[in-house]
Amino acid sequence: MIVSEPELFFEDFPVGEVVDYGSYEVTAEEIVRFAREFDPQPFHVDEKAARASMLGGLSASGWHVCAIVMRMMVDGYFGRTASMGSTGIDEMKWLKPVFAGDRLFCRRTTLAARASAKRPEMGILTMRWELFDAKAEKKAEMTGVNLIKVRSRA
Amino acid sequence: MIVSEPELFFEDFPVGEVVDYGSYEVTAEEIVRFAREFDPQPFHVDEKAARASMLGGLSASGWHVCAIVMRMMVDGYFGRTASMGSTGIDEMKWLKPVFAGDRLFCRRTTLAARASAKRPEMGILTMRWELFDAKAEKKAEMTGVNLIKVRSRA
Repeated sequence: MIVSEPELFFEDFPVGEVVDYGSYEVTAEEIVRFAREFDPQPFHVDEKAARASMLGGLSASGWHVCAIVMRMMVDGYFGRTASMGSTGIDEMKWLKPVFAGDRLFCRRTTLAARASAKRPEMGILTMRWELFDAKAEKKAEMTGVNLIKVRSRA
Repeated sequence: MIVSEPELFFEDFPVGEVVDYGSYEVTAEEIVRFAREFDPQPFHVDEKAARASMLGGLSASGWHVCAIVMRMMVDGYFGRTASMGSTGIDEMKWLKPVFAGDRLFCRRTTLAARASAKRPEMGILTMRWELFDAKAEKKAEMTGVNLIKVRSRA
């Protein structure tokens, strides 16, 4: 899914563009496996404890949710984008638990785009990503930065 | 590392408190394993491509870095804290690449603390976490929310 010659550059993410992409089914196995390694709180690793918790069922670690958003992004478009990395995330909201069995899709919106003043070959995108389940209930939302090569300078 | 009876409550995280904790050595194996699953960009999965990239070496996915911060937090104090979850992250900065072989430690600072107006048994903490390597170079920084039970209401 990573191509050696990128197809998408800074110019391909115009401000205001909204794109839906991806389909990802979350399994109980991967929720527990991720949480055992990185976030072993009972409601992420133990189905019984999860049912008794305020979340009501086995739910993915918030960091697992972010990792899933990243994977959907790479598969959806980022794997063929001339990425130069990211400086960070401005805001992330975990709105609803992501449960085992949820099928997820993503929506990206380009909020802002500018060329770097110091490095004119680098574009700076501010993007919003929203994660929904099959009923279009929003599970998470984040806003962050992507650094992407400018095609005209590539 | 998760204890059944929590020892730490909202009152145990006073505003202004700064605590260093943890020690975590990042391996090339785990960088590649995480990235293959969630963030398969060449500089996270391929040592040779990583050396040729602007990062100069195999570095962990930013989301892997977040997951490591979470794990260090659970091991350091959160596994014995009366956690009620989190609503999100206000800001996250990936400042420097986290390389294979880096040994990391964390620092937490309580920035703000208040009881929930709707749920007086729930305290809302705004915390900052900083991640450093062994030379005390800061690798990442994030600010976010922890919901924690109030001891006097437990």
